[in-house]
Amino acid sequence: MAFSTIAHDVEDGILTVTLDRPDNLNAFTVTMADELEQTFREVNERDEVRAVIVTGRGRAFCAGMDLAAEGNAFGLDETQQPTLDAMADLDDPALQRVRDTGGRVTLAIYDCRKPVIAAINGAAVGIGASMTLAMDARIVSREARFGLVFGKLGITPEAASTWFLPRIVGMATALDLVYSASILDAAQTKDVGLANSVEDAERLITAARDLADRWTKERSPVSVALMRQMMYRNSAEPHPREAHRIDSLAMFETSIADGGEGVAAFRERRAAQFSSATSRMPQFYDEWLRRQDD
Amino acid sequence: MAFSTIAHDVEDGILTVTLDRPDNLNAFTVTMADELEQTFREVNERDEVRAVIVTGRGRAFCAGMDLAAEGNAFGLDETQQPTLDAMADLDDPALQRVRDTGGRVTLAIYDCRKPVIAAINGAAVGIGASMTLAMDARIVSREARFGLVFGKLGITPEAASTWFLPRIVGMATALDLVYSASILDAAQTKDVGLANSVEDAERLITAARDLADRWTKERSPVSVALMRQMMYRNSAEPHPREAHRIDSLAMFETSIADGGEGVAAFRERRAAQFSSATSRMPQFYDEWLRRQDD
Amino acid sequence: MAFSTIAHDVEDGILTVTLDRPDNLNAFTVTMADELEQTFREVNERDEVRAVIVTGRGRAFCAGMDLAAEGNAFGLDETQQPTLDAMADLDDPALQRVRDTGGRVTLAIYDCRKPVIAAINGAAVGIGASMTLAMDARIVSREARFGLVFGKLGITPEAASTWFLPRIVGMATALDLVYSASILDAAQTKDVGLANSVEDAERLITAARDLADRWTKERSPVSVALMRQMMYRNSAEPHPREAHRIDSLAMFETSIADGGEGVAAFRERRAAQFSSATSRMPQFYDEWLRRQDD
Repeated sequence: MAFSTIAHDVEDGILTVTLDRPDNLNAFTVTMADELEQTFREVNERDEVRAVIVTGRGRAFCAGMDLAAEGNAFGLDETQQPTLDAMADLDDPALQRVRDTGGRVTLAIYDCRKPVIAAINGAAVGIGASMTLAMDARIVSREARFGLVFGKLGITPEAASTWFLPRIVGMATALDLVYSASILDAAQTKDVGLANSVEDAERLITAARDLADRWTKERSPVSVALMRQMMYRNSAEPHPREAHRIDSLAMFETSIADGGEGVAAFRERRAAQFSSATSRMPQFYDEWLRRQDD
Repeated sequence: MAFSTIAHDVEDGILTVTLDRPDNLNAFTVTMADELEQTFREVNERDEVRAVIVTGRGRAFCAGMDLAAEGNAFGLDETQQPTLDAMADLDDPALQRVRDTGGRVTLAIYDCRKPVIAAINGAAVGIGASMTLAMDARIVSREARFGLVFGKLGITPEAASTWFLPRIVGMATALDLVYSASILDAAQTKDVGLANSVEDAERLITAARDLADRWTKERSPVSVALMRQMMYRNSAEPHPREAHRIDSLAMFETSIADGGEGVAAFRERRAAQFSSATSRMPQFYDEWLRRQDD
Repeated sequence: MAFSTIAHDVEDGILTVTLDRPDNLNAFTVTMADELEQTFREVNERDEVRAVIVTGRGRAFCAGMDLAAEGNAFGLDETQQPTLDAMADLDDPALQRVRDTGGRVTLAIYDCRKPVIAAINGAAVGIGASMTLAMDARIVSREARFGLVFGKLGITPEAASTWFLPRIVGMATALDLVYSASILDAAQTKDVGLANSVEDAERLITAARDLADRWTKERSPVSVALMRQMMYRNSAEPHPREAHRIDSLAMFETSIADGGEGVAAFRERRAAQFSSATSRMPQFYDEWLRRQDD
């Protein structure tokens, strides 16, 4: 994997993805979208990784779409005339320069089998802000800034952020954030419920790694992956009965596999030795996602 | 437009709708429902309006359904025997004296292309409270009172308030508010997350106008309209993929139109001159709403 | 009704269900699941009951699944190979030792026509914690502990808790609670929004009864039942129009029945005499649930 806009580093089971265009405040490009999408699709099969941290090189996290690019600033092919009908098949090659690039990334994060933590080290603006809403926590440095500034540019929120944001902060705050398009400082991100914690800059990555450890260290990889997918997918079902169907299968499969070991270890007051891997999800998993994704 | 229960005033792009039955504490009637529904349907085509404020004349905001009316207190035709099947076609003329009057208003607010701000100047009780839940912010005077009192009368919440309320305050608070049917004072509306801010009475309208300006002044009208609809509609989809479809079309259309100007103005460090209008929404808009509304 | 793992007590219209295996910290068993499911299904027809409180005997609320049981710790038949297809018909007898036992209980709570209040007197762990998320309030003693500890055992959240939890505390807190699998003390349950109030141990049941009275005393039983079902069901619909359909029927039916009396009593400044009963729900009710439950 050779990337030109991001860097990968794996240490003790944590993949750190660093947005790596520091001379451009890590501004987002179509290539960065491709590389992030690939990262979050492939990490599902990387059994040595138990959690992902996303941060930025230098003083910014991500200053938004790189508006210095030629042509359509968002990488879109303006000669097309896309319709709602045409969006039915998102994999249609003709759509690839119509589809919102940020959404390709956040849909890959949505499907991710590992917890994803944003370590926001500086300015997170536009797609730099909205991409973190699909992540499971936002740890922010005191230097961080956070702005869903789309409204000031005459465009709209993207990256499926209108799906994720009200789930995190509630509808009234979500509307205020996108309408006002204000740039929040670190304390404000905590006050409105966006940030899980605010950290001194030099402690940011340590805090993100501590959280990743608290969530995933000595845990069953399949249990963690299922918890993540169940939380996002079950909660969006119109009836808890759908959650019950998935719960039943998830408990059945895990109670036979890692759960058997977990219960035995609990009874014997010893550490559990889990053996599952996210590259081998339970049999119902693919069918579940296929149905939901249709 | 000649109204008998409300008043309209447009100043600097803000339509102020005043509930205007001060001798009856602005109690809600079927005529008021008709006039409010018409207001929120027609404002979509009024390009000179960028935001709507709803407030009450005199000392109340709206004291609820006018229980002094003859016959069924809620304007319903008690001779009918409506079934769930019959509710399928809400436009059926036979249903018009069965349909909840408050819901006709809040569904029109839901479809509104402009931000809607409640400036709650006094008692907001019953439909006076529930109608504000479909609005994007509630600015309350220190004299305001807020009560979802349906339970005390042996009836139920209406105006689709059970759809909107948990999105604003979460399920546990929502249940407590409707079960307890208590009347909250201004400070309590802020504490539970209903009010965006509490203001001195004499500053209430100024604060509401300031918020409307912060949200809509010098903004692209189509961008604002799309943000509003995307927030409510995308967040209620079972899968973020639907949000991605709409995001893609919204970004495509706005990046070519007002977004092109917005980005150019940003690059050139000048104020943007937006030219879109909510009377001319992008081509996918009607089809999107039609599919959702079926 | 003779129960072996729970006890029933009805006083002044409040059914108190006591988890009653104090020598086992009220650990959850398949029998307890059966008895709780039966309780919440049957209480809908018990017109003398207006609210339900669930608490634990002795020092625990419920210490989770009884892991001392032989064979599969969760009562599941490991010889089966359930698929997502097979889960379509949840009533299939072959599924009864595959279905998550906690979910059978929380789906019965979901369908309940009376408010349900958890009075958490001590440790609530695993299913002891997740079952309370389907209840309408959690009143906790200072001695209470609350832990969604599934992740530590290599299993997953169950009892449809991934459907209920984000509705109560938002997505970011929900993810943190299930990933971290931490055990919260009483103050923490309040801080994260799980607990409605924290009480001294000796006042716990009094506080729960006070809340039940505030919610249901001198109220219309059908109004309360409809409010409960409308809040959970309407809020999960993709469009407020569905809420409007149910609102219209609920207002129509209640405004003719208990609502007529409620309005008359309000006008005459006297206490209302409501006569409805949850054993006789309005005509649209069964059809509504049948459609939703399919």
